Amino acid sequence: MILILSPNITKSDERFTQLMDYLSGLPNIQTNMHAIQGEQQHLTEIYLLGETSSLNIEDMRSLPGVENAVRISQEYRVLGRHENDTRESGFEYNGVQFNQDNLNVFAGLCAVDNPQHVEEMMKALQSHGQVCTRMGAYKPRTSPYSFQGHGKSCLPYVFELAGKYGIKVIAMEITHDEHISEINQALEDTGHPTGVMLQIGTRNTQNFELLKAAGRQQEFPVLLKRGFGITLEESINAAEYLASEGNSKVIFALRGMKTNMGDPHRNLVDFAHVPVVKRLTRMPVCIDPSHSVGSRLATPDGIMDVMHVTAQGIIAGANMVLVDFHPHPKCALVDGPQALLLKELPYFLDDVAITREAYEKRCDLVDQFSKNN
Amino acid sequence: MILILSPNITKSDERFTQLMDYLSGLPNIQTNMHAIQGEQQHLTEIYLLGETSSLNIEDMRSLPGVENAVRISQEYRVLGRHENDTRESGFEYNGVQFNQDNLNVFAGLCAVDNPQHVEEMMKALQSHGQVCTRMGAYKPRTSPYSFQGHGKSCLPYVFELAGKYGIKVIAMEITHDEHISEINQALEDTGHPTGVMLQIGTRNTQNFELLKAAGRQQEFPVLLKRGFGITLEESINAAEYLASEGNSKVIFALRGMKTNMGDPHRNLVDFAHVPVVKRLTRMPVCIDPSHSVGSRLATPDGIMDVMHVTAQGIIAGANMVLVDFHPHPKCALVDGPQALLLKELPYFLDDVAITREAYEKRCDLVDQFSKNN
Amino acid sequence: MILILSPNITKSDERFTQLMDYLSGLPNIQTNMHAIQGEQQHLTEIYLLGETSSLNIEDMRSLPGVENAVRISQEYRVLGRHENDTRESGFEYNGVQFNQDNLNVFAGLCAVDNPQHVEEMMKALQSHGQVCTRMGAYKPRTSPYSFQGHGKSCLPYVFELAGKYGIKVIAMEITHDEHISEINQALEDTGHPTGVMLQIGTRNTQNFELLKAAGRQQEFPVLLKRGFGITLEESINAAEYLASEGNSKVIFALRGMKTNMGDPHRNLVDFAHVPVVKRLTRMPVCIDPSHSVGSRLATPDGIMDVMHVTAQGIIAGANMVLVDFHPHPKCALVDGPQALLLKELPYFLDDVAITREAYEKRCDLVDQFSKNN
Amino acid sequence: MILILSPNITKSDERFTQLMDYLSGLPNIQTNMHAIQGEQQHLTEIYLLGETSSLNIEDMRSLPGVENAVRISQEYRVLGRHENDTRESGFEYNGVQFNQDNLNVFAGLCAVDNPQHVEEMMKALQSHGQVCTRMGAYKPRTSPYSFQGHGKSCLPYVFELAGKYGIKVIAMEITHDEHISEINQALEDTGHPTGVMLQIGTRNTQNFELLKAAGRQQEFPVLLKRGFGITLEESINAAEYLASEGNSKVIFALRGMKTNMGDPHRNLVDFAHVPVVKRLTRMPVCIDPSHSVGSRLATPDGIMDVMHVTAQGIIAGANMVLVDFHPHPKCALVDGPQALLLKELPYFLDDVAITREAYEKRCDLVDQFSKNN
Repeated sequence: MILILSPNITKSDERFTQLMDYLSGLPNIQTNMHAIQGEQQHLTEIYLLGETSSLNIEDMRSLPGVENAVRISQEYRVLGRHENDTRESGFEYNGVQFNQDNLNVFAGLCAVDNPQHVEEMMKALQSHGQVCTRMGAYKPRTSPYSFQGHGKSCLPYVFELAGKYGIKVIAMEITHDEHISEINQALEDTGHPTGVMLQIGTRNTQNFELLKAAGRQQEFPVLLKRGFGITLEESINAAEYLASEGNSKVIFALRGMKTNMGDPHRNLVDFAHVPVVKRLTRMPVCIDPSHSVGSRLATPDGIMDVMHVTAQGIIAGANMVLVDFHPHPKCALVDGPQALLLKELPYFLDDVAITREAYEKRCDLVDQFSKNN
Repeated sequence: MILILSPNITKSDERFTQLMDYLSGLPNIQTNMHAIQGEQQHLTEIYLLGETSSLNIEDMRSLPGVENAVRISQEYRVLGRHENDTRESGFEYNGVQFNQDNLNVFAGLCAVDNPQHVEEMMKALQSHGQVCTRMGAYKPRTSPYSFQGHGKSCLPYVFELAGKYGIKVIAMEITHDEHISEINQALEDTGHPTGVMLQIGTRNTQNFELLKAAGRQQEFPVLLKRGFGITLEESINAAEYLASEGNSKVIFALRGMKTNMGDPHRNLVDFAHVPVVKRLTRMPVCIDPSHSVGSRLATPDGIMDVMHVTAQGIIAGANMVLVDFHPHPKCALVDGPQALLLKELPYFLDDVAITREAYEKRCDLVDQFSKNN
Repeated sequence: MILILSPNITKSDERFTQLMDYLSGLPNIQTNMHAIQGEQQHLTEIYLLGETSSLNIEDMRSLPGVENAVRISQEYRVLGRHENDTRESGFEYNGVQFNQDNLNVFAGLCAVDNPQHVEEMMKALQSHGQVCTRMGAYKPRTSPYSFQGHGKSCLPYVFELAGKYGIKVIAMEITHDEHISEINQALEDTGHPTGVMLQIGTRNTQNFELLKAAGRQQEFPVLLKRGFGITLEESINAAEYLASEGNSKVIFALRGMKTNMGDPHRNLVDFAHVPVVKRLTRMPVCIDPSHSVGSRLATPDGIMDVMHVTAQGIIAGANMVLVDFHPHPKCALVDGPQALLLKELPYFLDDVAITREAYEKRCDLVDQFSKNN
Repeated sequence: MILILSPNITKSDERFTQLMDYLSGLPNIQTNMHAIQGEQQHLTEIYLLGETSSLNIEDMRSLPGVENAVRISQEYRVLGRHENDTRESGFEYNGVQFNQDNLNVFAGLCAVDNPQHVEEMMKALQSHGQVCTRMGAYKPRTSPYSFQGHGKSCLPYVFELAGKYGIKVIAMEITHDEHISEINQALEDTGHPTGVMLQIGTRNTQNFELLKAAGRQQEFPVLLKRGFGITLEESINAAEYLASEGNSKVIFALRGMKTNMGDPHRNLVDFAHVPVVKRLTRMPVCIDPSHSVGSRLATPDGIMDVMHVTAQGIIAGANMVLVDFHPHPKCALVDGPQALLLKELPYFLDDVAITREAYEKRCDLVDQFSKNN
């Protein structure tokens, strides 16, 4: 069961003390506290674990300082969307809102190669009003003999350039818990010119030790990609590892399933799961069209598949897009052939805007229909 | 190699005779003629098979009565989109256009149960301006002990009611070549009040004998669904069985891939392949959201998944939607739980319209972008 | 519920008449009779359908002429292995026994190409004591432009050569119900020199009309291959289509699942399902190592993968092996690269014998263990 | 290219110095040394990286101290089986041989629960002549709310009991690089009573940082399980991460692929890949029947599926079996329902012996056949 406290209640508040006293007296019940910093206010949630089935929900709602109580289902305790659970989704990070109702585009480099390319990318983003990007420093690769990313050595210039061009959040894949402290250190060293969203890739979806490490810190939000070869349920359970350790600033990313049934695309695009994740959990949902499609091929109507699948995610309510651009794809060290060109950035953003607008119209339509039926 | 003749040329035309004389003299080359009835004109294509690699394409273009010549790739000879192949896609049937540029909705009953339900459905369609529907008479079912459809006995009233309510085309699954003549006979008996599009389902995608039978007749167009457990390429090759027998009025339908990776949806929705099929072939592409999703569950924004995936198909250029409605889903004999309600029909059509409009804007945008780059 | 009558009871038997009279008086119960010709005796089973839950099983067992009664589960009514169901599995055809306890090898040509090759094959089989073979006359192929088999034209010489070399059963794929009468006719014309097991391939596993046609005749046994992209349960349900129409002489064949997870094998070999099919049903289980593996590659120990997977099927109790041989694989019109050579036939049979002997030892071992525990 | 030096050559050997001098003078060639401790002798291999295509292989074979030279293919540089590569496979660890020619059984507890169960297990193993076992201390679980294993706290008693009962090697899963030092420390603290084989599970197959950590140490051999949802090639590439860091004592384990096509088994058993891994690499191949099957269900012949699939692995040449036993499966904290009972241990070992003997006969048969053909 979750007790959601009245907004802005603090530990020194008398109601809080009374509440905790009461709770500590309940037999076979443990408590677990989660602090949530929203855009406007500070929220505290208290998880009650153990023999909660004997607790009466109305009694709990009437306890001092408690605004609401929600009985949680077995699965997805923290991130799940429980019955009669009207809590808001999402979080704010470094001035940017992430929730199930809005949309953020993270265009950028799959792999950082050199400062020039990073700067060209950042500059283009700023000139088109973007404050988020993706930048890969640590690259897990199928073969040990492939380029493995520049690692921590590139972090300082990436962060400084981000600051220079007004980038607020960089999505950056990590593959070991040490990378978190390396990123922390580099941000420290450069004076925190930007923010970082830790990205955990499909090869590490069930690397539970890495998830726990990313969950123990609450500084950085985490973008968790769905795993290959496991069910959606198992991947969402992996997200719950982050939350159960204390970090519920989690975004869930779809990136296609690896199977030859998806040929000629690189993966079988799974963006029909956007609504499913939004129904089962309160996580914002990200799509990764570049890795799903893996090419720049276009249809006879002139639109590239990578843009078609982006539109497919957005028309169904996706909240974030992770997309590969590169100033000079032919020089890209990783996944060049699928990257979009800088000159295509405004076109890409316009295409996204058309579809997002249509999604919003669809939401209005269903509201109207519901009212009349 | 394909020789596309000048429009409206006939077999009695002198140029035609000269051409055929010349072709018959080519060593190790066989010819194969395809007649295509377009909206405005009659087209003849001559397929040259055998040692065509020795033929000079410019020479062939200059032959009498030849308007264009296209060298075909090995695969998808008839339905494929070959290099420099600017032929139009699609066909007209019973006054309705089917091509890669437009959109037709086929809302209707998964399985015909009784005349009342059929009439309610048809009436609702007419009152919302629809001229196409789906009606299942022959139902292939996993277990031999499940309801197998009313078969030919229901055809007369289905066709008559269609005629009464102005329905031009009914998509109807067949599972045996005899069904073609049964349909033919019933149309004959009822005075051709409507038209039929033969639907070949996923269990019969590689039932080549059925494909050949549907390909040998040229009266009815065919809607071929993608097969489970085989690659997209193999399913498109199956479509080519229809065309190689003489019927190139073929629409290709996506309906999801069967794998637990798609849970909780019934299938893993594969509509990202809409642009792929349009790139590889000249077939219009249909989506089947009802069987892909298999439920009426909705997201917190209030929109059902089945409508989200419909939008995903349309935003990427799908040309046809096959969707289950039922006046009384609880009484439906097959797949009731996934059916939409009649009162949802106008809402569904409005939702489709919003997305289709967005798709068209996306096409305009890419045109503009291409012109400026 | 199934009533198993005393052996050799006939329709003219008084007990039979009494029984049927009684059954016809039961409310809401329909009966369905199955005649089973075993090696030694004639068995009659009566299926009771409808509201059987109200029947008392002990009462039914005491009816005249009834030896046993078995309550059937919902699924796999005829072919399933129900609780306390001790009926024997299998059948005899043309002097050859097929059941869950023995093993038959069907080595032969994937596709009949010419009489010489057929004769070389048959001769080799006879000289190594074999009385079964496989011979493909009707070949379903992915592309309409590939060789489709010689069809009915080759049947006479195939059957005559079979007779000449003492072959009792030929497994032969069919893809249309007409093929059954073509085979019947050719056997008639040639004086029934051999027998045929109708083979229904993976592309037609859910071609229910073909299954019904093969189920309506009771002359030929049927070998049904598991379907691609569907669950094992769905494929077994397809087998039940044969049985529900009256033909329970069905063998179920495993041939691998199509997925790139099986690379570099042609399919992901699924022979671990041999014991599963034997547990769920009373069908003998066949394995098709040639199509599963698709190559002649060998391990460092010198044994080809195709023989390794054959051994894997047999060590787990497979009852039939369908394997491609060819006198001159380089000239084979279909699947030559995977075929074994005639000179490898005795080696193959010896390898099979080693493994079968080990399987039998394993059965003895478990018997001993069960007795002592 | 790999230069294999004459056995027992040391760095102080004059030939070694001459060789290294020569190699250091080659333009654009880097060298990388691997020491391999075999049963009888010490082997040194020198990997030449860079522009090796210009080197003449005969020249390299004639260099001082070089016994043989092998040109390596791009993939699987260290672990792969290259053309004309006659090097032996495998290694010795703590007195136990692991190679592609022999067979070791690792029966034991999926998860350590308490000292009593560990002791019962170890005692049973010793009394049946076993010197290897499996013991899970760190358990990665799908849900963060499931039991995660006793971790390092149980290591001391596990190691001491192993020593008491003569166990030489314990396969133990690790999920973080710290676990390696924890194991190291516990072995140190308890006086090295036994040895450990580090097991990396399917969730971490592409956790490259963990692989690198396990590859940097050369004390413990590593058992790497195949990953879900990725190709066999990708999983073998993951093994190469271990070897490229310096540890080539690697065993590759098959454990089934996660897909509903495997139902009712827990996974689709993939042991047909045993011969494939032996052909592509020099790694011994392990099978994990317990996790593949996931139940104790048996066929009508009385043999459990888990034993059938064990036999399937062994008859095709598997070199190691990882199998779950438990003294009291109902009390097991993880995967109890699939565990075998202690009283079944001798029966299991006898069943394994029957099949292994058959495999060896198959090897003799192919040798004989090869000699005569």
